[in-house]
Amino acid sequence: MNINTNYQNISDSYLFSTIAKKVNEFAAANPDKKIIRLGIGDVTLPLCKVVVNALKSASDEMGVQETFRGYGPEQGYDFLKTKIQSYYKNNGVQLDLDEIFISDGAKSDLGNILDLFAQDNTVLVPDPVYPVYVDTNTMAGRKIIYIDANAENDFLPLPDKSVKADIIYLCSPNNPTGAVYNKEQLKAWVDYANENNAVILFDSAYECFITDENLPRSIYEIEGAKTCAIEFCSLSKMAGFTGTRCGYTVVPKSITSGDVVLNKMWLRRQTTKFNGVPYIIQRGAEAVFTEEGQKEIQENLNYYKENAKIISDTLKKHNIWHIGGKHSPYIWLKCPNNMTSWEFFDYLLNNVQIVGTPGSGFGKNGEGYFRLTSFGSRENTLEAVKRLDEFLG
Amino acid sequence: MNINTNYQNISDSYLFSTIAKKVNEFAAANPDKKIIRLGIGDVTLPLCKVVVNALKSASDEMGVQETFRGYGPEQGYDFLKTKIQSYYKNNGVQLDLDEIFISDGAKSDLGNILDLFAQDNTVLVPDPVYPVYVDTNTMAGRKIIYIDANAENDFLPLPDKSVKADIIYLCSPNNPTGAVYNKEQLKAWVDYANENNAVILFDSAYECFITDENLPRSIYEIEGAKTCAIEFCSLSKMAGFTGTRCGYTVVPKSITSGDVVLNKMWLRRQTTKFNGVPYIIQRGAEAVFTEEGQKEIQENLNYYKENAKIISDTLKKHNIWHIGGKHSPYIWLKCPNNMTSWEFFDYLLNNVQIVGTPGSGFGKNGEGYFRLTSFGSRENTLEAVKRLDEFLG
Repeated sequence: MNINTNYQNISDSYLFSTIAKKVNEFAAANPDKKIIRLGIGDVTLPLCKVVVNALKSASDEMGVQETFRGYGPEQGYDFLKTKIQSYYKNNGVQLDLDEIFISDGAKSDLGNILDLFAQDNTVLVPDPVYPVYVDTNTMAGRKIIYIDANAENDFLPLPDKSVKADIIYLCSPNNPTGAVYNKEQLKAWVDYANENNAVILFDSAYECFITDENLPRSIYEIEGAKTCAIEFCSLSKMAGFTGTRCGYTVVPKSITSGDVVLNKMWLRRQTTKFNGVPYIIQRGAEAVFTEEGQKEIQENLNYYKENAKIISDTLKKHNIWHIGGKHSPYIWLKCPNNMTSWEFFDYLLNNVQIVGTPGSGFGKNGEGYFRLTSFGSRENTLEAVKRLDEFLG
Repeated sequence: MNINTNYQNISDSYLFSTIAKKVNEFAAANPDKKIIRLGIGDVTLPLCKVVVNALKSASDEMGVQETFRGYGPEQGYDFLKTKIQSYYKNNGVQLDLDEIFISDGAKSDLGNILDLFAQDNTVLVPDPVYPVYVDTNTMAGRKIIYIDANAENDFLPLPDKSVKADIIYLCSPNNPTGAVYNKEQLKAWVDYANENNAVILFDSAYECFITDENLPRSIYEIEGAKTCAIEFCSLSKMAGFTGTRCGYTVVPKSITSGDVVLNKMWLRRQTTKFNGVPYIIQRGAEAVFTEEGQKEIQENLNYYKENAKIISDTLKKHNIWHIGGKHSPYIWLKCPNNMTSWEFFDYLLNNVQIVGTPGSGFGKNGEGYFRLTSFGSRENTLEAVKRLDEFLG
């Protein structure tokens, strides 16, 4: 057989393995020092009670002849899709049920959606970036061009009309920077996409962290988005589903290429190459969107947001430039004293035993920056800022 | 953007929608007649108690801080992989843990594995066939050639050395025919693949129905398979997981192309485009492989096997040629009186109100054949053969 040689062009990321190696070495040499990890992008609070109850109740259903469920619809059960439809409606977005596809997570669908597109497309990716956008396109042999996200544009690049792109990745609130597009900025991207017959792959996995009502939580709040944008969202950060696996992808029926409707293509892709999310998990996800579920997850989100504020306040006090942390679990800071990302990593690890993520791991524009996350425990977050405060003060 | 125009070459299957339409029309015209559905390929017995308990216990764990799990390994937890490793060992097959990848089902991975191969490969598919093999390759623009499975070769075609294929699909016990390759026959395929630098994608989703110890339940029981075969299996039929979603894919480390190791490519694919099966579901799957779980699922499998025997015995009594049903949930019969598949469908529906699947829906060699399944209830299966017996007798 002939293998897909594009795999040889994927650059192996040693980011997290290098972090692990450095941390392990430090821990071995300093067994008495407590290391606080604020580098991870994973949640730490448990699932809400209402979700656990729904999971258990659905498990019971599966053990009884009368309520047992076999194959379900590949695109998800209506009981969950109607809940998501209502969730969008609360943000002023009207979706048809068959525009919503239940997924096992945003990461899977962000990769799988590429099945719908020819190899011959130019992919536009902001730098710094979530590495999956780049790797999945490299695997498929597509040409990737980058747009600079940097301090000059507040890490929110706008379209360059002289550049022709076909597939555009946007993530807002952004991973890794935490920057959030406002409506005018997103409108510029939507207009660019519609003018260029391009498609926007909009990663809204962190929309639940937005508190400012004027900031868009969905790209469909922007006029014209339904003819150019596919939106990917996830319960991972919203409801602590990183190990429970459920998300959703919205493919509006009005995105077309000639007489081909992308919604129909995606339905065909999913019915052929996917068998749906487990019934039990879909019942757990449904519970997230109940009144009680929304109340419980809001408490968890507030916990993470308060952590972010605690970190942000300490950085402010010491005049360390940073963005994010307000509508995002991520704090993106400029390494003080012109340290490189890795220098600052070593500096924090050696002096205050705080582990973060070097910005250079997310692309060239990340050099000199550093990502901290608010997903740690309150206790650890407070201890971390106390150490920082004492050390920097 | 440029769309993947290969999607326009996928033939829309109207098989199941046509069946539904005919059944609905008959039911509307004959409201007093009870229709028995023996066409479905979906299980009907509920999950085992030990599985339900494991699902509930894992759900509880996810609701408690100390035992909560976030992102897991994309390739699956070791607690489940070690169980599958032991399951293989019982069939005399030794696998390394990192050759086993937990999946959300055989269908997903049978499609996704194609990411590893270039477009320029010739795909060999038996006819009749599970349509997903054809559709996923058509979507990727690959050349497909067919090999005839028919009554002359007992629906177990062997390699034609004059034909050069790169990617070969085998399914044993077969869907739709229920035919099972013996070791000598599989050896011929393994030798062919190794000689031609081809890869065999071996779908063993129905291995759990095999009772004859001399028949291979895994292709790795065949010498040489570890350098050419990738095996896909599923808990769907084994443990009633069609709506619970868990399977596993084995990619031996000894399959290479030049210096590229396919196991490493698949790991890269999965870590980039997949986030693993839900922790809760993996705990449910683990329970399947416990002593108690194996006992419970065996009872369910015996129930389906007895249904198959009941159907097969009636067909034998009336001298209707058929295969399968012995090591498979499927019975593949020759339509009597030279009826076409659809003529026999109408004949059964109109006269005895039994719904099966026309063989022609699985390929040209399926014309004149018909598939019945043993996944119905005992009561319905007995009622169906009673009607058949009276009508044919």
